[in-house]
Amino acid sequence: MTGIQDRLRRAVDAGFARQVAFLSDLVRFPSVRGQEAPLQDWIARQLADRGYSVDRYTLADVDMFNLPGFSPVMDTDYTRAVQVVGAKRATPPTGRSLILQGHVDVVPTGPVELWTHKPFDPVQRGDWLYGRGAGDMKQGVASMIFALDAIAAAGLEPAADIYVQTVTEEECTGNGALSTLARGYRADAVLIPEPTDGTITRAHVGVMWFRLRVRGVPVHVAQAQAGSNAIMSAFHLIQALQRHTASLNAAARSDPWFGGIPDPIKFNPGVIRGGDWASSTPAWCEVDCRIGLLPGVTLESAREGVERCVAEASRAEGFLANNPPDLIWNGFQADGYVLEPGSEAERVLAEAHRCVFGAAMEERRSTAVNDTRFYGLYHRMPALCYGPRGENHHGFDERAHLPTLRQTTLAIACFIAEWCGVRDA
Amino acid sequence: MTGIQDRLRRAVDAGFARQVAFLSDLVRFPSVRGQEAPLQDWIARQLADRGYSVDRYTLADVDMFNLPGFSPVMDTDYTRAVQVVGAKRATPPTGRSLILQGHVDVVPTGPVELWTHKPFDPVQRGDWLYGRGAGDMKQGVASMIFALDAIAAAGLEPAADIYVQTVTEEECTGNGALSTLARGYRADAVLIPEPTDGTITRAHVGVMWFRLRVRGVPVHVAQAQAGSNAIMSAFHLIQALQRHTASLNAAARSDPWFGGIPDPIKFNPGVIRGGDWASSTPAWCEVDCRIGLLPGVTLESAREGVERCVAEASRAEGFLANNPPDLIWNGFQADGYVLEPGSEAERVLAEAHRCVFGAAMEERRSTAVNDTRFYGLYHRMPALCYGPRGENHHGFDERAHLPTLRQTTLAIACFIAEWCGVRDA
Repeated sequence: MTGIQDRLRRAVDAGFARQVAFLSDLVRFPSVRGQEAPLQDWIARQLADRGYSVDRYTLADVDMFNLPGFSPVMDTDYTRAVQVVGAKRATPPTGRSLILQGHVDVVPTGPVELWTHKPFDPVQRGDWLYGRGAGDMKQGVASMIFALDAIAAAGLEPAADIYVQTVTEEECTGNGALSTLARGYRADAVLIPEPTDGTITRAHVGVMWFRLRVRGVPVHVAQAQAGSNAIMSAFHLIQALQRHTASLNAAARSDPWFGGIPDPIKFNPGVIRGGDWASSTPAWCEVDCRIGLLPGVTLESAREGVERCVAEASRAEGFLANNPPDLIWNGFQADGYVLEPGSEAERVLAEAHRCVFGAAMEERRSTAVNDTRFYGLYHRMPALCYGPRGENHHGFDERAHLPTLRQTTLAIACFIAEWCGVRDA
Repeated sequence: MTGIQDRLRRAVDAGFARQVAFLSDLVRFPSVRGQEAPLQDWIARQLADRGYSVDRYTLADVDMFNLPGFSPVMDTDYTRAVQVVGAKRATPPTGRSLILQGHVDVVPTGPVELWTHKPFDPVQRGDWLYGRGAGDMKQGVASMIFALDAIAAAGLEPAADIYVQTVTEEECTGNGALSTLARGYRADAVLIPEPTDGTITRAHVGVMWFRLRVRGVPVHVAQAQAGSNAIMSAFHLIQALQRHTASLNAAARSDPWFGGIPDPIKFNPGVIRGGDWASSTPAWCEVDCRIGLLPGVTLESAREGVERCVAEASRAEGFLANNPPDLIWNGFQADGYVLEPGSEAERVLAEAHRCVFGAAMEERRSTAVNDTRFYGLYHRMPALCYGPRGENHHGFDERAHLPTLRQTTLAIACFIAEWCGVRDA
C-alpha cells in the first residue's frame, strides 16, 4: 500500500488548491433548509463532469413515510428538496462497495452582524476557511469528492462500486439520507465525513424535536389579572423540561457509552415566538425544542417521558390545567446509534488514518446525531462517521481547518483504495 | 333642557339602526396599526357628506417630535398614518367649543380560530355586536358622530365650534392625538368616548413600552454547555422585571388615586421572538414589554427604575454580565393623568348622564392609558373620558353593548347641547 499511498498523497497535494476553491464554491451557496436545490444542481453537474452516473431526485419522489427512521415534517416543500447520488460502477467489481455520503444543508446563520465575515462569502485566514457550512459539513463533501479525484489523478480507479451521495435534511430530520435507502442504494460500508477531527464516532445519541404550542387568554393588560400570559406559561413548561432533562442525565451516569460524559442529554429551547402586541396579554406562544436520548432508548419511551413531564407541569398551573398545550412531534425523531467495535471497515479506516496521521484513530461519543444511524441501525451496514476538523458549527464564524482537511482527504483516499481495491485506470 | 332632551332622545332612537349599521361598517375595516388609512378616508367622506369641513393629513405632515408626550416609534410608516379632523364652525359662536375625539386603530386579533365569529365580520347577537374594535373604540366613534347627527336631526345646531377627530396610534404611542394639538386644534373641553361603561375616568396610569434585545452565543446543541441561550437569558430578565413590578405595586398602596386598587402597575411581556433553529442554542431573543407608572411619577424616573432592574439582573448572570442586553424605549412613553375634580365640563356631563341613566355618573380609575392626557396634562383643557360599554377589549370575541351605546349617545348629545348650547338650525 505504501506506493499507492505516496501516489495518492502527491495527487491530494496537487489538487488541494482546487479543493479549497471547490469548498469555497460550496460555501457560497446559502443552502439553508429549503434552499439547497441550486447547490445540488451544481454538484450534480460537477459529478457528471467527472464521469459519474448521476441520479438526481427530490424527496417528494420517494415513498419513505413508513420506513424506520422517518421523521415527520412541517413547514417545508419536498418537491424542492433535491438529492444527488453519483455512481461509479466498476467493471467488473472485484472489491468491496462503498457509499460516501455528506449533507449540504446548513443551519441558519443567526444575526449576520455578529459574524466577522459574511457567512456565505468564504474568507481564508491562515489555516482556516470561514463561512456557514465550511465546517459542517461542506469540507467533508469536498473531502470525499477530492479523495476520489485523487485516485483518478493517480492513474487509478476503484475496483468496486462507489456511490457519492449529497443529501439534505441532515440538520432537521435525516430524511435525505433515508431517501437514498428508500431508493435502493446499498453498499458493503458507508463513510460520512462529518467534522470529527480525525476521530471515529463510536456512538451518538438520538434526537427528537417537538413544538410546544401554548394558548393564553388575551385581555387588555389593564385587566392582566383576568388573562393568562402564554409566554409565561411556555416558560413554566420549559423549566419543567429542564428538570426532566436533569433527571435523564442523572440516570445516564450508568450508561455503557455515555456514562463518562457529563450531561449527555441536551435539552434546547431553540426557537420561540409568541404574542402580537405589547399591551395585550399574549394569546399564544410556540417553542421549538430539541432533546436527546441515549442509544437503546426507544423513541416511544422518550416521547412518553416528555409527554408526561408536560402533562404534569400543566396540571400544576391553573390555566394550563384547563387548557393543556399542544405537543407536536415535528422534525427529528432520530434513534441513537452505536458503531459496534470490531468491523473490518473500521479496521481498514483506522489503518489508513494511522498511515496518514502517524497516530492511532481515536474514538468519540457524540451528543449530537448524524446520518450513520440509517445505514448502521436499520440496514446493518458498517457506517463510519470520520472526517476533518472544524469549529463553531451552528455558531458565528464557523470555520474549517485546512491542514486537517488535506490529511483527512488523503486518509479517505487511502481507505477507499484499500476497502474497494484499486487498479490502473 | 327637558324639551330638548326629548327631541334628542327621539332623534337618537330614530337613528339607532343606522348607527349600528355605521358601527358595523367601522368594524369591517381591519384597521390594525399601519392599516387605518382606508377607514380614515371613509370617515373623512362621511364627515364631508354631513357638512363638516374636513382636515385630512398624515403624521408625516406634522412636526411634533419635540412636543411633550411624543413617543418614539419603530416599524411603522407615518406617511400612511392618516388623521381626520372634521370641524363645524358656529356663526357666530356663542357657546363653549368642544373636541370630540376617538381612535380608529385596533389591536391585533391574535389567533383568528379562537374567535367565535370572524373578528372583522361583525355579528349581532341579542344586545351585543361582536368584532375587533367594536368595543374599543369604534362604538365610541359612532356615538360621537351620531350624537351630533341627532342634534341635526332634531332641527338644532351647536352654538359653538365643534371638532370631530378620528386619530390613530392610540394603542401604541398616542401620537395621533398629539398631532391634532401640534396642528393647532384647541377647545374649551374635550370628550373621548372610550368604553367606560358610563363612568368618568378620574385618573389613568402612564404606560411605557420597551424592547429587550438579548444576545446569546450560538453553538451546536451537542456543546450546549459552551453556549448561552438567549431565550433563557430573556426569561431571566422577565423574572427580574416581575419582581421590580411587585415592589412598585407595594409602594403604590399609598398612592392617593390608585392606593385602593390591587396591583395597579401592570407589567406585560407581550411579544417574544428568538432563535432560528431547534438544534442551535438561540443567539438572539427580543421581548416587547409594557409597564405602567402612577400619575405624578416622571417617565424619566420610571425608565431609570427599569434600567436599574435590567442592569442588576444582567450583572447577576454570567453571560449577560459581559453582554448586557439592549433596552430600547419604543412606543408608549405616556404620562399618567388625573382629571382634577370640580370642572364645569365634568359637572355638565354628570348632569347629562343623570338625566339619561337616572343615576349619578360614577368615576373609575384606569390601569390603562388613554388620549385625554394630551389635552388635560399638556394643554389644561378639561378632558373627559366617558363612553359606552364593551367587553373583551384586546381579547377574543370583543363586543359592544348596544343598549348602553344608545343611552351613551343620548347622554353625549345632551352634554353637547348644554356645553356648546344649541339653536334652531
